[in-house]
Amino acid sequence: MTRIDGRSADELRQVRFTRGWLDHAEGSVLVEFGKTRVLCAVSATEGVPRWRKGSGQGWVTAEYAMLPRSTNTRSDRESIKGRVGGRTHEISRLVGRSLRGVVDMSVLGENTLMVDCDVLQADGGTRTAAITGAYVALHDAVTWLREHSLLAGENVLHDSIAAISVGVVDGEPLLDLNYQEDVRADTDMNVVMTGAGTYIEVQGTAEAAPFARSELDSLLGLAETGCARLTELQRQALAS
Amino acid sequence: MTRIDGRSADELRQVRFTRGWLDHAEGSVLVEFGKTRVLCAVSATEGVPRWRKGSGQGWVTAEYAMLPRSTNTRSDRESIKGRVGGRTHEISRLVGRSLRGVVDMSVLGENTLMVDCDVLQADGGTRTAAITGAYVALHDAVTWLREHSLLAGENVLHDSIAAISVGVVDGEPLLDLNYQEDVRADTDMNVVMTGAGTYIEVQGTAEAAPFARSELDSLLGLAETGCARLTELQRQALAS
Amino acid sequence: MTRIDGRSADELRQVRFTRGWLDHAEGSVLVEFGKTRVLCAVSATEGVPRWRKGSGQGWVTAEYAMLPRSTNTRSDRESIKGRVGGRTHEISRLVGRSLRGVVDMSVLGENTLMVDCDVLQADGGTRTAAITGAYVALHDAVTWLREHSLLAGENVLHDSIAAISVGVVDGEPLLDLNYQEDVRADTDMNVVMTGAGTYIEVQGTAEAAPFARSELDSLLGLAETGCARLTELQRQALAS
Amino acid sequence: MTRIDGRSADELRQVRFTRGWLDHAEGSVLVEFGKTRVLCAVSATEGVPRWRKGSGQGWVTAEYAMLPRSTNTRSDRESIKGRVGGRTHEISRLVGRSLRGVVDMSVLGENTLMVDCDVLQADGGTRTAAITGAYVALHDAVTWLREHSLLAGENVLHDSIAAISVGVVDGEPLLDLNYQEDVRADTDMNVVMTGAGTYIEVQGTAEAAPFARSELDSLLGLAETGCARLTELQRQALAS
Amino acid sequence: MTRIDGRSADELRQVRFTRGWLDHAEGSVLVEFGKTRVLCAVSATEGVPRWRKGSGQGWVTAEYAMLPRSTNTRSDRESIKGRVGGRTHEISRLVGRSLRGVVDMSVLGENTLMVDCDVLQADGGTRTAAITGAYVALHDAVTWLREHSLLAGENVLHDSIAAISVGVVDGEPLLDLNYQEDVRADTDMNVVMTGAGTYIEVQGTAEAAPFARSELDSLLGLAETGCARLTELQRQALAS
Amino acid sequence: MTRIDGRSADELRQVRFTRGWLDHAEGSVLVEFGKTRVLCAVSATEGVPRWRKGSGQGWVTAEYAMLPRSTNTRSDRESIKGRVGGRTHEISRLVGRSLRGVVDMSVLGENTLMVDCDVLQADGGTRTAAITGAYVALHDAVTWLREHSLLAGENVLHDSIAAISVGVVDGEPLLDLNYQEDVRADTDMNVVMTGAGTYIEVQGTAEAAPFARSELDSLLGLAETGCARLTELQRQALAS
Repeated sequence: MTRIDGRSADELRQVRFTRGWLDHAEGSVLVEFGKTRVLCAVSATEGVPRWRKGSGQGWVTAEYAMLPRSTNTRSDRESIKGRVGGRTHEISRLVGRSLRGVVDMSVLGENTLMVDCDVLQADGGTRTAAITGAYVALHDAVTWLREHSLLAGENVLHDSIAAISVGVVDGEPLLDLNYQEDVRADTDMNVVMTGAGTYIEVQGTAEAAPFARSELDSLLGLAETGCARLTELQRQALAS
Repeated sequence: MTRIDGRSADELRQVRFTRGWLDHAEGSVLVEFGKTRVLCAVSATEGVPRWRKGSGQGWVTAEYAMLPRSTNTRSDRESIKGRVGGRTHEISRLVGRSLRGVVDMSVLGENTLMVDCDVLQADGGTRTAAITGAYVALHDAVTWLREHSLLAGENVLHDSIAAISVGVVDGEPLLDLNYQEDVRADTDMNVVMTGAGTYIEVQGTAEAAPFARSELDSLLGLAETGCARLTELQRQALAS
Repeated sequence: MTRIDGRSADELRQVRFTRGWLDHAEGSVLVEFGKTRVLCAVSATEGVPRWRKGSGQGWVTAEYAMLPRSTNTRSDRESIKGRVGGRTHEISRLVGRSLRGVVDMSVLGENTLMVDCDVLQADGGTRTAAITGAYVALHDAVTWLREHSLLAGENVLHDSIAAISVGVVDGEPLLDLNYQEDVRADTDMNVVMTGAGTYIEVQGTAEAAPFARSELDSLLGLAETGCARLTELQRQALAS
Repeated sequence: MTRIDGRSADELRQVRFTRGWLDHAEGSVLVEFGKTRVLCAVSATEGVPRWRKGSGQGWVTAEYAMLPRSTNTRSDRESIKGRVGGRTHEISRLVGRSLRGVVDMSVLGENTLMVDCDVLQADGGTRTAAITGAYVALHDAVTWLREHSLLAGENVLHDSIAAISVGVVDGEPLLDLNYQEDVRADTDMNVVMTGAGTYIEVQGTAEAAPFARSELDSLLGLAETGCARLTELQRQALAS
Repeated sequence: MTRIDGRSADELRQVRFTRGWLDHAEGSVLVEFGKTRVLCAVSATEGVPRWRKGSGQGWVTAEYAMLPRSTNTRSDRESIKGRVGGRTHEISRLVGRSLRGVVDMSVLGENTLMVDCDVLQADGGTRTAAITGAYVALHDAVTWLREHSLLAGENVLHDSIAAISVGVVDGEPLLDLNYQEDVRADTDMNVVMTGAGTYIEVQGTAEAAPFARSELDSLLGLAETGCARLTELQRQALAS
Repeated sequence: MTRIDGRSADELRQVRFTRGWLDHAEGSVLVEFGKTRVLCAVSATEGVPRWRKGSGQGWVTAEYAMLPRSTNTRSDRESIKGRVGGRTHEISRLVGRSLRGVVDMSVLGENTLMVDCDVLQADGGTRTAAITGAYVALHDAVTWLREHSLLAGENVLHDSIAAISVGVVDGEPLLDLNYQEDVRADTDMNVVMTGAGTYIEVQGTAEAAPFARSELDSLLGLAETGCARLTELQRQALAS
């Protein structure tokens, strides 16, 4: 099968990380998965939320949002509506939880890393791009903390994380769905993995029809390939 | 390993379905998984939301909430706080999506089934209990619609669904975690399956440490056992 | 006149108190007035709100709410609407004020009793059932505080309270209106009384037509009968 | 007993009605009960809320609010807090319900009377002043509707209404409590009566101690005296 | 050109200041510009917001609001809508900023002056009336603080402020627009000036057509005349 | 005086317009004034708000917002706070009003142009950059409408608009303040002008001290220079 944009089934879109896209943030990355563009900004502040004070442990949390015209047709702003929608909540929680999966909170010490992932343009896979880009920005923010002698030890990050979407479209498992593929998918899965190849999060959803164990297995295989490739690209970006 | 409440690793808590617990709702079930108690009420109304009018298709949606003292220590009401939290949003969406997975919207016709899952007492596994109980209440509401000649055809429900939580506690995969086990779990997974044994939703999260593919496989195996057993219990409840 | 459900004018519906319906709450009662079912949970916590700190006085407050499908047709959740309605506010305030009427705050000491009254099913008289049930749950919570040596003295509760609705339907004063009677009532009155037969609250409203002093007097008489009977039933429930 | 301001127990404060205080409203009154000053504005509009359309019946509703510095110490604005408090809700509902008690909705026809009662200065009895003043403003708005030939018949108002607070202070029943008396009252009652001397609303609350039937009776007697006097003052104001 | 109400182009409407309109507020003024009527109340409290504590500096802030029926047709309450609108926010900020322009915060010491401007009736120029009246009320509140020995020095107010609206209607620059003129204006400008004739705020807006520098100059000239006249009237009011 | 970044008093920062920065929007521009970076997206939709239907007139409106880490220290999201702040409201209104100043609504016909200005990075002058960039994006959206034959005539835009901030810093009038200059300014003014050199909006504020007419005149002069230069840059950007 040829995909809409000519990719093979197990091929990522063009992925780009632009580090330091913002002048103020302690870590920032503009991450692109094809036309999907997410601005990840990490704000490092001394101190932790009240419930964690005196624990010697740090904290990492995240907020995800979309600009109103990041999408094909404009969506109303959540600030104007006066409340954050379920999807936004859900993805914010996912991003924060995923990042916390590789952070050693004792080494971070009583510092907070607040991660903002704002989707400037959406073409499918915004949450996985957000996680993948946020890891790079987080890495830069940790470097900033180290340079300012604010860490309690050496290895705050005990591994890297990357995330990718996979799905079954017209019966075929595909890697890194764009928007057009995403709306046609029968099954949709988002997978977050460590650089070591273990799982942080697996979320599979039957969009149109229930899926069999065999499909689940193929999707997990594809995701593993994708995350390994993203891990490599993150390494290159951080090395440059 | 002996579990806190004496169960074996692949054993469900005592599960009970009390159908018709409410006098007004078109379908209602008080479902109990051990001490976890969820009241599922299905409201059937003619008509569909505006964006679906004229499509000939029905709609199913769900809202999940917890009573303030369903938990060990009291939580503030979301009505008083003036907004619905991320976890509530996330579970409401999961319940609705899961139920839609087995509903034939054309046969339902332009009717709406609104599913309310209110947790009266929480002891772990409230979302999976909610889905499992809601299926039974939905079945009763569909019967009510049929008896009132409001359906466009025969088989609204093309399968049943059941859901269960599984997790790795102290290195051992366990079925149907209660609250005490849940807080100690390294990995936590919720699985929604059809009566036919296919997947509707798989959500696995590394709570304390990333998990390997082998753990994922054991957990999926346990969940399959649990869902099959719940499917059987749902059948008995609906037969009585 | 024969009433819809065969009762005489001064007869209560079947009243039931199920103590300890919840495992976590310091006091809990499922109270039933016929088909009206209210879950009353009392949460006892050490400490008082900021404005009362250092006073040596305790605090009692209440929140009342209805499950969306407790009623004949489903109502939207106040959490989703993002605000608490006037009726909910009004009844929450009434329940809290009524309970405070028999609590000796100095003996309670700097403890807070938070009372949640959640209507699981509504068939008229939910606010009076809530007050009547909440008293029993409060009594159990006070016992719990005593058993944990958290009280400053002996008699926290200097009396019991009970509440009942009365109304004029088709010209006849009736006790304990169910929903069908309530919507047809010309005058509707809720009365909260102590076990000693004094008044805590009297709220009479002309629904369809203004009422004369003579009607007011008959309604007060009926309410006195009803509250006395409820007081007796509370005593039996607490004795069992 | 001499009262703080020298009145006898059954004496009203000085009551003043300034009709037409606003240039735009169809009816408006600045009502004063001593230092308590409430601006009542009635807005008459053609049409009724959606749920009443086609019924041929009109609608009357009310909103009560306090200016932030109407009170001794400033209160935060409910608009800034983003929600209306329980007390505000409760009084708004009381004012609307009371006024509807004397309006013949069929004669009003499909018109809406929206009554705004804004407390400019508070010194006790704001809700009863609001109701008493609102009646006069409502009367003027009805005249405006008649002059514009917008009514379906002659007698929209089948009676007048007036309201007064009464309470037991230091064991003595007093009429028309000012703020200082109100905070010291053991029992507090608000009574809304028609010009014909029947009851629209009776709300009695034990503030410090439960009250006996005999106290209730004295308070009702005092309220009757007060409402009759207010009815007379309303008549004079409307005649001028 | 003759104006609707017979004034000449550079003539103010009748301006009246009623000081001490409220009994509780530390300073209060009912200010009238023709039919526009704004109640300005200043609440003086010891202490400052948290971010200013320990600075030795005081704080002045303001809130502006309109009663629902201050306008020709009724507007919904912002408390009911659950949020403050853009225009309200904008004017509240303008009033506070303007007043701060003449307050010496070191002399005020750690006291807060909260200024409430509530429009009782609106006929154009409500924001400029609010500022002009608020200055007089602020002056009275400062006197109150001095009399209670709460100030750190002598001259809290180093000048007076007054504000006026000017606009171009049918090609002619006019002073102090009423509502009918305001809606027909091509250009609309609000100017806040000190008693010394310097500027605190200039806000000019092209309503219908862009305006030339020459028009801007004429409007500034007219505003200067108006503010000088208002300054004189404020002096007289404060002297009486 | 040498400015912080070496500019002369009447020199703009480097201004850049990147047209078509987004793939979906009908018009989009990433505008940069030095480090200030604003993404302007124009969404063109057929139809107008309800209150304008059938008028044959179009509508233009705008929303301005800042990303949480666009600033030096992170600000909380307005969506999370559940309400839009006063400053955001104020600027959104300013942007919309300014753009409407050059749009012929009859030629636009019943189409709506929704303008989103999202500040990605803030270094002073975000509102004036937003207006200046939004004009270019609006121009592109109008071209899109013309190409899709959705306009009622030829010249929707009867002029261009540009905006600049000016201020007095250490006694010297400066053009196009960056953040460091802005916080030190005594007087701050934002001016919106047409390509023809007339005024759309003038907003001058005394930040630290009242300003004299002579200062106002110098600032207006500087702003005229700045807007003329921006107009030229807009022309070049639209020509490329």
